[in-house]
Amino acid sequence: MVIKASIIGATGYAGAELVRLLSAHPQVELVGLTTQSYAGKAFWEVYPHLYGYVDLVCEEQDLPALVARSDVIFTALPHGHAMAVAREVIDGGKALVDLGADFRLHDPVVYQDWYKVEHTAAELLPRAVYGLPEIHRDEIRSARLVANPGCYPTSVILALAPLLKEGLVETGTIIIDSKSGVSGAGRGLSLNTHYCEVNESIKAYGVAVHRHTPEIEQELSALAGKKVLVSFTPHLTPMIRGILSTIYARLTRLKSTEEILTLYREFYRQEKFVRVLPAGMLPATKMVAGSNHCDIGLVVDRRTGRVVIISAIDNLIKGAAGQAVQNMNIMFGLAEDTGLYGPGVYP
Amino acid sequence: MVIKASIIGATGYAGAELVRLLSAHPQVELVGLTTQSYAGKAFWEVYPHLYGYVDLVCEEQDLPALVARSDVIFTALPHGHAMAVAREVIDGGKALVDLGADFRLHDPVVYQDWYKVEHTAAELLPRAVYGLPEIHRDEIRSARLVANPGCYPTSVILALAPLLKEGLVETGTIIIDSKSGVSGAGRGLSLNTHYCEVNESIKAYGVAVHRHTPEIEQELSALAGKKVLVSFTPHLTPMIRGILSTIYARLTRLKSTEEILTLYREFYRQEKFVRVLPAGMLPATKMVAGSNHCDIGLVVDRRTGRVVIISAIDNLIKGAAGQAVQNMNIMFGLAEDTGLYGPGVYP
Amino acid sequence: MVIKASIIGATGYAGAELVRLLSAHPQVELVGLTTQSYAGKAFWEVYPHLYGYVDLVCEEQDLPALVARSDVIFTALPHGHAMAVAREVIDGGKALVDLGADFRLHDPVVYQDWYKVEHTAAELLPRAVYGLPEIHRDEIRSARLVANPGCYPTSVILALAPLLKEGLVETGTIIIDSKSGVSGAGRGLSLNTHYCEVNESIKAYGVAVHRHTPEIEQELSALAGKKVLVSFTPHLTPMIRGILSTIYARLTRLKSTEEILTLYREFYRQEKFVRVLPAGMLPATKMVAGSNHCDIGLVVDRRTGRVVIISAIDNLIKGAAGQAVQNMNIMFGLAEDTGLYGPGVYP
Amino acid sequence: MVIKASIIGATGYAGAELVRLLSAHPQVELVGLTTQSYAGKAFWEVYPHLYGYVDLVCEEQDLPALVARSDVIFTALPHGHAMAVAREVIDGGKALVDLGADFRLHDPVVYQDWYKVEHTAAELLPRAVYGLPEIHRDEIRSARLVANPGCYPTSVILALAPLLKEGLVETGTIIIDSKSGVSGAGRGLSLNTHYCEVNESIKAYGVAVHRHTPEIEQELSALAGKKVLVSFTPHLTPMIRGILSTIYARLTRLKSTEEILTLYREFYRQEKFVRVLPAGMLPATKMVAGSNHCDIGLVVDRRTGRVVIISAIDNLIKGAAGQAVQNMNIMFGLAEDTGLYGPGVYP
Repeated sequence: MVIKASIIGATGYAGAELVRLLSAHPQVELVGLTTQSYAGKAFWEVYPHLYGYVDLVCEEQDLPALVARSDVIFTALPHGHAMAVAREVIDGGKALVDLGADFRLHDPVVYQDWYKVEHTAAELLPRAVYGLPEIHRDEIRSARLVANPGCYPTSVILALAPLLKEGLVETGTIIIDSKSGVSGAGRGLSLNTHYCEVNESIKAYGVAVHRHTPEIEQELSALAGKKVLVSFTPHLTPMIRGILSTIYARLTRLKSTEEILTLYREFYRQEKFVRVLPAGMLPATKMVAGSNHCDIGLVVDRRTGRVVIISAIDNLIKGAAGQAVQNMNIMFGLAEDTGLYGPGVYP
Repeated sequence: MVIKASIIGATGYAGAELVRLLSAHPQVELVGLTTQSYAGKAFWEVYPHLYGYVDLVCEEQDLPALVARSDVIFTALPHGHAMAVAREVIDGGKALVDLGADFRLHDPVVYQDWYKVEHTAAELLPRAVYGLPEIHRDEIRSARLVANPGCYPTSVILALAPLLKEGLVETGTIIIDSKSGVSGAGRGLSLNTHYCEVNESIKAYGVAVHRHTPEIEQELSALAGKKVLVSFTPHLTPMIRGILSTIYARLTRLKSTEEILTLYREFYRQEKFVRVLPAGMLPATKMVAGSNHCDIGLVVDRRTGRVVIISAIDNLIKGAAGQAVQNMNIMFGLAEDTGLYGPGVYP
Repeated sequence: MVIKASIIGATGYAGAELVRLLSAHPQVELVGLTTQSYAGKAFWEVYPHLYGYVDLVCEEQDLPALVARSDVIFTALPHGHAMAVAREVIDGGKALVDLGADFRLHDPVVYQDWYKVEHTAAELLPRAVYGLPEIHRDEIRSARLVANPGCYPTSVILALAPLLKEGLVETGTIIIDSKSGVSGAGRGLSLNTHYCEVNESIKAYGVAVHRHTPEIEQELSALAGKKVLVSFTPHLTPMIRGILSTIYARLTRLKSTEEILTLYREFYRQEKFVRVLPAGMLPATKMVAGSNHCDIGLVVDRRTGRVVIISAIDNLIKGAAGQAVQNMNIMFGLAEDTGLYGPGVYP
Repeated sequence: MVIKASIIGATGYAGAELVRLLSAHPQVELVGLTTQSYAGKAFWEVYPHLYGYVDLVCEEQDLPALVARSDVIFTALPHGHAMAVAREVIDGGKALVDLGADFRLHDPVVYQDWYKVEHTAAELLPRAVYGLPEIHRDEIRSARLVANPGCYPTSVILALAPLLKEGLVETGTIIIDSKSGVSGAGRGLSLNTHYCEVNESIKAYGVAVHRHTPEIEQELSALAGKKVLVSFTPHLTPMIRGILSTIYARLTRLKSTEEILTLYREFYRQEKFVRVLPAGMLPATKMVAGSNHCDIGLVVDRRTGRVVIISAIDNLIKGAAGQAVQNMNIMFGLAEDTGLYGPGVYP
């Protein structure tokens, strides 16, 4: 089988990472790369590391033609821009994996509250599946419209799922402190991603208002079986790739570190991309960079009755492009790690 | 007035920063630098940035002679090594500022619990003052033995003091998530500070067991007027200098961000080194690097009823050498910012 | 004496570094900061590290008023923009230090060849002095218009001056390989200074066409007493501050490393900011970062008959703002290191 | 075919990179990993990014047993340590790829001059092939003992080969200025690789005495057909991976940039891992990091009659482990890019 794939918004970092992964995927043929800024340029001129590997030329978006020649379309666009695309792809009978935020929240009112724009394709929301395979694999299998999770939510939901499923944490006490590399802010120019402003510095941003909050709460609530509110603070960290989430919650019953690790190992037993680390080992972003892994470690603090769970992902792979490929593999019935198998490059 | 100052343990990063600050201090004459590893070498051979500024040669430690010729001695040693020194300095009638942990905790039992060594100078503990000037200035003024605070505790205690004084936070809900630059780990060689292991990575360490925890709890408890337990997680961040502490606590009464900022401005009105940032502005470590400042910003999250306070310091200055000089200035009746005035270098 | 100083183009990195240095200068009062992009904002809002130190508000440029209230004006502008300003400042009888390129080249034809714009103030060129104090101190003393050298040329000319003066190198064999931190590219946004593009990478740029080449050649030719052509290659290095220049030339007569170092020590004996390192020690940019120093080290390679000279500066200080202050100090008869004395911050 | 491979010195960075590449190689089975420091530990405990991918346990070296069960042995050891191993491997009839320096220089006297130790296996030198496939592919095919080139020499020889073959450069004018990431210094602890000493700094080292010089000169001399001496200066650059070499030489006949690029394209037409960039494009280390590529760009400077050639490699891949695998592929008759195909990860 050859899957014909196109990427809309191919020249951002998530898009380029998709190009890299899909160009090496044994059952995918890349048939279209669209971009706003580089139409007419060879893709390798925009990303020279791919010189000799990708011959496609960046196109302006001609959606009907693109849908016609593709089996699956990936959108890597700012929020609000995937809605119209989605309708056309679905109407054309093709599959869509949206790396943006437009189809992640089930409730269009919540979407509007946090994103400050109207949802103009709300009728598609019931058909959208939240594409976190370790939680929603069965629905993804039959979906045509997959909302690829945000980078922060991926790292958080995987880190908390086993505990919430078991009712082991007081859901009102969850604090999430996340640290992201700068590539999460994309290739667009801003003082926030200017080398001299970012290097040798760490800072918080979006405190109490970051848009990944409702996405995290939606999924944690579903796992817990009740409404969950969280405190979530992202930080900009002077490194290129990686998210580390440090998560705090009070236990409903005191368990040992080893007991909870056993629960996690059981929960993720079948998973190829979640690595539950042994007691005494904690994740570092460098250990997953360049891979589709999510590493998880944890410690129970008996003094405070809290558990501290730490997870690490590569924000551009498990937090974006890799997870999108994982979703595509599931939708098309391929082995889930096709084109994704392997550790990252270290150091 | 000329204060004759010596440094024991001068060739670590905190020691070298003391050398730099004291060599430029208008009322200090450096009279002795001791070190374990570099005795006989000119100090500038060990730290070439000081070539032309510091002519002293590193000495082996001859404590009686050193005490005799010094007015004040700074110790920048691993824990356990300042106890014997302290006794000799105090007996000699000179002043001591200890940058290590030996005299920070009032209770020798707590010290033993966390540091796993016996306290052999417990009789001096009642005379030791915890050297955080913004909280204990009056006691420092008359002290002969000042325990310079740890880097993390400095960033945390200053960030929480106004709220705890006012009883505005539920003391059982305090979560402290701190991020430190690598210089905090010193100049000693280890895989943890090896460039290729540290760069492009962030990780937590010492989860639930870091030794700055009891120091933080001692001071927060004193401010709150009741026993406070905290969750404290330090992280190693790929940058040289700086600590950012992100602190979460539930408010006892809902206040606005601006109301709490007003409280902070009032609390720190007289302080030269604490900068309370305007609403909407948050600290970044880069904004204080190279200075003795502690910048503080905060946000009230009405959804969760929590306040998120963020503080930034340069771990080697306000978190170590600068604060030590500030303490010396107070002990000797100088203007508190002598030799410390000024912003850092940016970018 | 109080010198009233203004900065035109204050919100770039060189401008901001000037603000920092001049705001701490004991004999300067800052009276005006102009900027294109931030007029009306407090300067500390643009550069928060100066919060509490600089109260000035960014102004739009009203040149006549600015000249009227200033004794000295600093221009930190892209090339081509200082010409009109210079005329007005000179006509107004005030002093100008131009950190840009407009008055560095004596020959307006050479300027046009390399900068591709016409020189519209060529009549001022004979009055402009090339502001490298170690070479042109006497002329600077009486100058009203000082052309502050480029960052690369500063590092190169100081590194070669003693050898060229003595006729010790074959002038046709000079190769200059320079490595600059990213702050040299300024605060303007571009993919070239985007964190993720720059970090973890080094590359050459402007090979054979960089505009600092004629400036280097003009000064080296004057020192050598004959026309000198050089190969000059700048590189963008993943660090914020610093320039390291590695310079190769064939010796006309074989000398030992120590003999040439002696020559350098003699040449720079009176200089406060040039540090000739002992044999066996070589410069590193980190050793001068944050200071106005130029460190120089060298090695004679007997096998090839070449000398390799290495120099390091902080591009924003000795390579820009610090040197500008040094020039102002000379022009106004102050001690040359006023406001500039001191080592940098390390590590 | 399954090739049984062992690595002696597996826990250094080059060794670990070999483990990663060979563990994913479709025709290799890793059968032994020896190490001095970690015997008894699972390899993934030493390199956690391989958790789930490599189950081997680090062994102490039992050479006869290792040779017996291996088809090929890779040595990644400090110089002087591969000599005895080589004899045993050759005697046992197995293949050896030595990543160290012991078999790179044909002349044992030159080896002794530069490495300051005696060569105790000089009788094997005639059988050793210098393993730069693009230059010595035919000899590698039939070799049993391949000396994998040094990282710097790989970047230099590939950059100069076409010009030297054609006699287009004056061989007495070659200057090589190389910049390496810190991983080139290995995982061993030293102040030179300590994060805070290395970050935000660049410096030269080994000026005129670096041990890769004779290796470069041996191969350039062979290409030129006459004795070549070079000036070679390596620099330590604040990044993890990558070598950029900037090479200067005077042309014997003036050619245009495009003419010389055409020559390079022709020379490397069949090569999978050398990418000659189009005119106007220059290499950056980031574009090859994580891959086995060597990117080459160049500029002719008509003013000086020189050509400036710039090459970039990943020092741990094309400069070490990747090239070792490439050599093994050739020795065993596999497609040369087996297990090596693909671009690196960007950004």
